[in-house]
Amino acid sequence: MEVYFDNAATTRCSEGVKEIVVRAMSEDYGNPSSLHLKGLEGEHYIKEAKKCICKTLKISDTELIFTSGGTESNNLAIIGSALANKRNGMHLVTTRIEHPAVSNPMKYLEEQGFQVTWLEVDKDGILSLEQLEQSITPDTILVSIMYVNNEIGAVEPIAEAVKLVKAKNPNTLFHVDAIQAYGKYIIYPKRLGIDMMSVSGHKIHGPKGIGFLYVKEKTKLKPIIYGGGQQRGMRSGTENVAGIAGLGQAAKEIYEQFEHKQNYLYQLKETFIAGLEGIKGVHINGRTGRESAPHIVSLSVEGVRSEVLLHALEEQQIYVSAGSACASNKPAPSNTLQAIHIKKEYLDATIRISFCAENTLEEVNYCLEVLKELIPRLQKYTRR
Amino acid sequence: MEVYFDNAATTRCSEGVKEIVVRAMSEDYGNPSSLHLKGLEGEHYIKEAKKCICKTLKISDTELIFTSGGTESNNLAIIGSALANKRNGMHLVTTRIEHPAVSNPMKYLEEQGFQVTWLEVDKDGILSLEQLEQSITPDTILVSIMYVNNEIGAVEPIAEAVKLVKAKNPNTLFHVDAIQAYGKYIIYPKRLGIDMMSVSGHKIHGPKGIGFLYVKEKTKLKPIIYGGGQQRGMRSGTENVAGIAGLGQAAKEIYEQFEHKQNYLYQLKETFIAGLEGIKGVHINGRTGRESAPHIVSLSVEGVRSEVLLHALEEQQIYVSAGSACASNKPAPSNTLQAIHIKKEYLDATIRISFCAENTLEEVNYCLEVLKELIPRLQKYTRR
Repeated sequence: MEVYFDNAATTRCSEGVKEIVVRAMSEDYGNPSSLHLKGLEGEHYIKEAKKCICKTLKISDTELIFTSGGTESNNLAIIGSALANKRNGMHLVTTRIEHPAVSNPMKYLEEQGFQVTWLEVDKDGILSLEQLEQSITPDTILVSIMYVNNEIGAVEPIAEAVKLVKAKNPNTLFHVDAIQAYGKYIIYPKRLGIDMMSVSGHKIHGPKGIGFLYVKEKTKLKPIIYGGGQQRGMRSGTENVAGIAGLGQAAKEIYEQFEHKQNYLYQLKETFIAGLEGIKGVHINGRTGRESAPHIVSLSVEGVRSEVLLHALEEQQIYVSAGSACASNKPAPSNTLQAIHIKKEYLDATIRISFCAENTLEEVNYCLEVLKELIPRLQKYTRR
Repeated sequence: MEVYFDNAATTRCSEGVKEIVVRAMSEDYGNPSSLHLKGLEGEHYIKEAKKCICKTLKISDTELIFTSGGTESNNLAIIGSALANKRNGMHLVTTRIEHPAVSNPMKYLEEQGFQVTWLEVDKDGILSLEQLEQSITPDTILVSIMYVNNEIGAVEPIAEAVKLVKAKNPNTLFHVDAIQAYGKYIIYPKRLGIDMMSVSGHKIHGPKGIGFLYVKEKTKLKPIIYGGGQQRGMRSGTENVAGIAGLGQAAKEIYEQFEHKQNYLYQLKETFIAGLEGIKGVHINGRTGRESAPHIVSLSVEGVRSEVLLHALEEQQIYVSAGSACASNKPAPSNTLQAIHIKKEYLDATIRISFCAENTLEEVNYCLEVLKELIPRLQKYTRR
């Protein structure tokens, strides 16, 4: 049985996505900037995709910028808003457990003279609202906090965070990296007071190389890519029509029977976690209940290196991630795992299991069986 | 008969491209950063694509950065190299007829304190090598010149230009926007001494939303997008595996039977131009012989507005472009047409016809017939 449990790294494209991508590539291939029928056909896909996405977020289609993916969305939000608003202040706030697509743009801005406050998190990866509030000054122009942490599935208190920040400094922009949250939660950014929110296509069974940034109307933002002035100047370059169409389709599909799917994911997660209880030396990082993300489980295994376990599982056709796979495949200690202060010996002894709604209980049980057999065996080897 | 003569705006994906894109989306969908088999499968597509592309350019696979398209490639080359090398000088050189994906990053750098020399061109859109040489100073860190102009098909003397620039200042980097040239010419950037070269997928029957930048080894470049450190830190973000695979396939296909295709395109162009001779008030912009690009014809029509002619042709299922379609569909006078000093009344009376190797002589003749009938009729309406 082939079991793909690395859905937080990337997902398989759905049939519906595949179909619309092929259609946009081969039949309706016009450049949306072209004034003729073929151009209009291309533009039509974009309009339809916008409709699908806007409906899931209750936003207007003028508040959507398509990008080449989650990383670009985060860069545009952070670098673009910092540069556009630096007259109001040079202070930025984020957490220690952000994805590198947030933390590295922040570090770039530090080089440019901005000051960044890196908020600590507790042992479950949750930020302290009190510390967040204290960090906000009249100079704070941007706060960027992820909705769901990609490594341990921690869910940050975004709604409360936005309220506190806006109460203390109404001019502070609030950006949310929702790359692991969109499709797993119903999120209405306007209602929450979020100014910018990043989403990636390939985490929700859409294509790679496409994503979007929600930008609340009137938010001041500078582009990071200049050219033909597409997307009202905010993101130049011929639109990736097929990718956009695929993303729209994926957004629509992921929110179909949403509650059922969310429940189902929790069921997979709960079954998996319950099954782990019998295995000695297995420690689950972060929260495990319904206050954690439905699709991510992070487990540290005493005396078994992540890569060893990953490849042993691979031999049984079970695909998981060592820590986070969303970075390049250079091994580096995970920011998140360090920030939640897991035992040092766990830093390179942690794997991430991540589900999608197409996974089955049978797969979960198969994985548990394999782990029960593997872990004690691998622990023996390592101890020698 | 449906006749698509807007191939300089975008092209239809080839069957081979479509197939490999679908495969990468649905079967081998792993994240190349994942350490398991599924990740390796994804990485394999990237390696194969690199091989195909490197072969066409005679470059090493470490000199290739995949981007979200030609616009991003140009931005990365220009902004990335200017910021990385500003200690050596703040002077940049380009021409007045570049695509907005070059001229707008240049304008952004002007805002940042860089000084840009905008070289004039002659009536055929060709730059003066003498003026280029004169423009280079010890402060010049970057020259960016397009290979083929997207609106009139002018071919710049890149080989000579590189020699002159490097002779005057060996530290000056040379960037070439080859978006309309790759696939139409055999280009060996290393042999030419080019440091960076931008290419787009969707101009060569590959997917939209993917492109690459050739960067000669040891060229100092700063990323414009930060994150997980993919592509050796130069371009973060999960690789668009399907797009990259499609681009590799497109690169391979476009250079198959290359000479035959290039000749064939010239044949289409020559037939078209010869056929236009009989129509009164038609003026062809730029050179028309084999020293011009094989796929682009720019024509101004006395007394007929571009959009009127474009839509009249559209009614006959012939799709062409008004000036350049590569920009957003806001009407603005074309830089290129202004720079070659065409008559003012031609500025909004110019259309661009652009071929691909799948176009036929039959299509060309059909288009000529339609034009012969249409133009005099439209001229009459306008004169009233």
